[in-house]
Amino acid sequence: MKIALAQINPMVGDIQGNSAKIINLISEARSAGASLAVFPELAVMGYPPRDLLLKPRFVRANVEAVHRIAESCRGIAALIGFVESNTDTVGRQLRNAAAYCTDGQVKQVRYKSLLPTYDVFDEQRYFEPGPEVAVVEHAGVPVGVSICEDLWNDEQLIGRRLYQRDPIGQLAAVGAKFIINMSASPFWQNKYPFRMRLFGNQAKRCKLPLVFVNQVGGNDELIFDGASAVIDAKGELAAQARAFEEDLLVVDLISSASDRCEPYPKGIAAVYEALVLGTRDYVRKCGFKEAVLGLSGGIDSAVTAAIAAAALGPKAVTGVSMPSRYSSEHSRTDADALARNLGIEFKIIPIGEIHEAFENTLHSHFVGLEPDITEENIQARNRGAILMALSNKYGSLLLTTGNKSELAVGYCTLYGDMCGGLAVISDVPKMLVYQLAEYINERAGKEIIPRNTLNKPPSAELRPDQTDQDSLPPYDVLDVLLEQYITNEKSVDEIIAAGIDPDTVQKVVKLVDMNEYKRKQAAQGLKVTSRAFGVGRRMPIAAKFRY
Amino acid sequence: MKIALAQINPMVGDIQGNSAKIINLISEARSAGASLAVFPELAVMGYPPRDLLLKPRFVRANVEAVHRIAESCRGIAALIGFVESNTDTVGRQLRNAAAYCTDGQVKQVRYKSLLPTYDVFDEQRYFEPGPEVAVVEHAGVPVGVSICEDLWNDEQLIGRRLYQRDPIGQLAAVGAKFIINMSASPFWQNKYPFRMRLFGNQAKRCKLPLVFVNQVGGNDELIFDGASAVIDAKGELAAQARAFEEDLLVVDLISSASDRCEPYPKGIAAVYEALVLGTRDYVRKCGFKEAVLGLSGGIDSAVTAAIAAAALGPKAVTGVSMPSRYSSEHSRTDADALARNLGIEFKIIPIGEIHEAFENTLHSHFVGLEPDITEENIQARNRGAILMALSNKYGSLLLTTGNKSELAVGYCTLYGDMCGGLAVISDVPKMLVYQLAEYINERAGKEIIPRNTLNKPPSAELRPDQTDQDSLPPYDVLDVLLEQYITNEKSVDEIIAAGIDPDTVQKVVKLVDMNEYKRKQAAQGLKVTSRAFGVGRRMPIAAKFRY
Repeated sequence: MKIALAQINPMVGDIQGNSAKIINLISEARSAGASLAVFPELAVMGYPPRDLLLKPRFVRANVEAVHRIAESCRGIAALIGFVESNTDTVGRQLRNAAAYCTDGQVKQVRYKSLLPTYDVFDEQRYFEPGPEVAVVEHAGVPVGVSICEDLWNDEQLIGRRLYQRDPIGQLAAVGAKFIINMSASPFWQNKYPFRMRLFGNQAKRCKLPLVFVNQVGGNDELIFDGASAVIDAKGELAAQARAFEEDLLVVDLISSASDRCEPYPKGIAAVYEALVLGTRDYVRKCGFKEAVLGLSGGIDSAVTAAIAAAALGPKAVTGVSMPSRYSSEHSRTDADALARNLGIEFKIIPIGEIHEAFENTLHSHFVGLEPDITEENIQARNRGAILMALSNKYGSLLLTTGNKSELAVGYCTLYGDMCGGLAVISDVPKMLVYQLAEYINERAGKEIIPRNTLNKPPSAELRPDQTDQDSLPPYDVLDVLLEQYITNEKSVDEIIAAGIDPDTVQKVVKLVDMNEYKRKQAAQGLKVTSRAFGVGRRMPIAAKFRY
Repeated sequence: MKIALAQINPMVGDIQGNSAKIINLISEARSAGASLAVFPELAVMGYPPRDLLLKPRFVRANVEAVHRIAESCRGIAALIGFVESNTDTVGRQLRNAAAYCTDGQVKQVRYKSLLPTYDVFDEQRYFEPGPEVAVVEHAGVPVGVSICEDLWNDEQLIGRRLYQRDPIGQLAAVGAKFIINMSASPFWQNKYPFRMRLFGNQAKRCKLPLVFVNQVGGNDELIFDGASAVIDAKGELAAQARAFEEDLLVVDLISSASDRCEPYPKGIAAVYEALVLGTRDYVRKCGFKEAVLGLSGGIDSAVTAAIAAAALGPKAVTGVSMPSRYSSEHSRTDADALARNLGIEFKIIPIGEIHEAFENTLHSHFVGLEPDITEENIQARNRGAILMALSNKYGSLLLTTGNKSELAVGYCTLYGDMCGGLAVISDVPKMLVYQLAEYINERAGKEIIPRNTLNKPPSAELRPDQTDQDSLPPYDVLDVLLEQYITNEKSVDEIIAAGIDPDTVQKVVKLVDMNEYKRKQAAQGLKVTSRAFGVGRRMPIAAKFRY
């Protein structure tokens, strides 16, 4: 039995465009001899549709689209992720569903049983869990159709069963000959090996092959990595689609030995690919072709520029150096070297006159007060306003360049260097930024990020002789501490007990907590770790705690 | 039987401070002869604690606090809202709970059955619903203890039953003599009469008195209005605590005729009180004493200033006029008059020199390009940077002054007039801003908001002779349209069918959709309508739709 894993990159909300893509792929799958084409979760609308689901007209449009798609299912069947109204009189209004289409019609509908409502997921905001599971009969074979989270209920690996139900076990029990899982499973670093172990466990437990069809592409802060796959009944990987791009993988469930098995990028390469895809999709799906960013000569803006150039092409990227009276000579020369290495456009716009105009204007209001963070922020905000003016005038999207470590401790200026539509590396801790930089140079086989940028001590250059380490612990210590506090939710006491200097822990935790207000107004960032700032971390602001 | 309704204003996360407040009120309630003191939902930590709940140390601290509070329950019992670990091995880790404390101990614990996961609520992110309900025996009387949403399951009023369970009906069925509901029920305009109708229905249905204890105070965007109440078994209001402030209301469930019944503010007055409380609490709970804001001479900044002066006292508020070459004379004189009427500090900081410095700096980069929105945004961003400099230098919180209609259509500048920590009226549609202004003058019995501010056509004054209505439909039309589209989730077709000009509908809907990116980075706003931008409306940005 030939099955086509149709790994698409949908545009959220674009029912018409996504439907056209689906219909094309059904036709391609038929040409390739597949009897069944499988699409990702909510393929008709793209995942996550979020509160678009509260628009009744949108839900109706998605149902109509599935019926139109079904009309193209002749000589082939297709499983399409969509949303259906809940016909029960009690419970939430919608169900996360899969339409089994064949002979020009939607023949059967199956439902997601387990609805993730943690981290970035809000499915119980919209959906009612499906009723008891049942197989779909496809070409005389009972098939177990499941949707994403339905599979992620492995006590052994996850530590706790969140759900009472076990839809995969039930599907196996009622006679499924293989399990299909239609997914939209967001990427984060090191999730892939975990995912494969989980899939292997589930296949072995059920003694059934598993066909996993994943969405690919960036949708706002989430990046979907594709790598749709077939796992055999022994839990071994039998076939795999490309990671981080669209693909149509046709497999033969009987003789899968001959199927394509694309490699998955290893280690830092996966993070790089994710960021490139996430940046490309965010810029393009927002309707932009070009991007602009500030180049300080430092590592963060250099890595951001390299990712942008890879995502959009160097000709679509403009880097801007905005020197002040405190800028070192190397801030310009390193930025210039980077821009030349990448082949992007480079502008120099000194902020001196603007900076002085602010000083003159505010002088009489600041009489007798010492210079402090105010004066530093003014420079950052001057630069932000210049970049936004270029963005407005040229219709390019401003990329902001701060990393996760800075954003965590608030080492960044609201309405200054935080200006921008997309924060490319705001979920990349500083030490990982260095790894990305080394990888970018390695990958190119030549110096892209200038060696001096990699070697010099990080500095915001907002006052004379400033370096980041004047106010922050060394980044290798900071990053460990932040991972413990933010990702692992360890308490102050636990982090101190693990051997980090108590004063450092207290100071950093305080900075993290008190800078929630900055993150509230931060640009959308690309999630590449298991716990990113943004929609997956919801903290109060007007609050008082220290744990 | 005397019961104390202990309507507190907790600080989110401040377990120690909230516990001290609870212990004091238990002692006060005992002095007043109460046998039971009832506190709001999650009183120990304040509602909503959001992802603080994912910190195990925080949850442990809240449990320890409840046991400490219980030690003070001697000669009186208390019901305290807190969070308990779920001891079942399957399901989410926590339960939203109520501790019945007496004789110095936590004697019984009851759980919330219905977990709201819509609008601003995310309870299924954290909590597992409680098991079957059971009464608490208090002084020999079986009492039905419920928590907030448990009561909000009225098919008749809400239109659809979201939940399979009916905890209130069950509590009545197992013999409760009255129902207690511990709540944290956020304010919005016109919710109060709806809430009272719902409570009346529930009391009548069960033929039992209902004791409703609500949180009061502002926590981030949510404002809790207090007005804790007793509804008798016939569904009539028998006693009511103060709205929008802390209160301890002691009632006698047998002879409630003599109980205090505070009035609830009518109409626009409730919105005003909510905004004043929300502003005061946000500023103070964030650790600020003073606020600063731009005064344009227009209605939005005037109303915001009046609310800030009422919230913090006029001496704690500074208004800043920042005229440009396009500013009218009245922009300064109206702002000056307002500041004098309110008794707030007033500064004039012209932006001319800064504006020119930007023009000079960008001149060579903009050669041959027509002036457009870029130049308008530069002025708005100059003003934002000046206000942020004052905020940084003086440690005052910047209030942003945009209204909901503007924010909806993106008639505001990111990093410009959108700068600020709190958007006081960002959930107030323009027509309601006018009502608030009239109310503020009426309430004062004299002109606070200058008549000229009320009468002149709204203008951003970012180019010569500009008015809002150059680019937007009249606000009375716009506000109706926005309510249909945003609050009621009506489709374009439905809004046109209701009689609004099709071109206007298309244009406005497009503006709303395309400006999601601005709202992503908007300041926290105070929710005063049933559908506010912010945590209760979660839209994709890199998306394509028009419904």
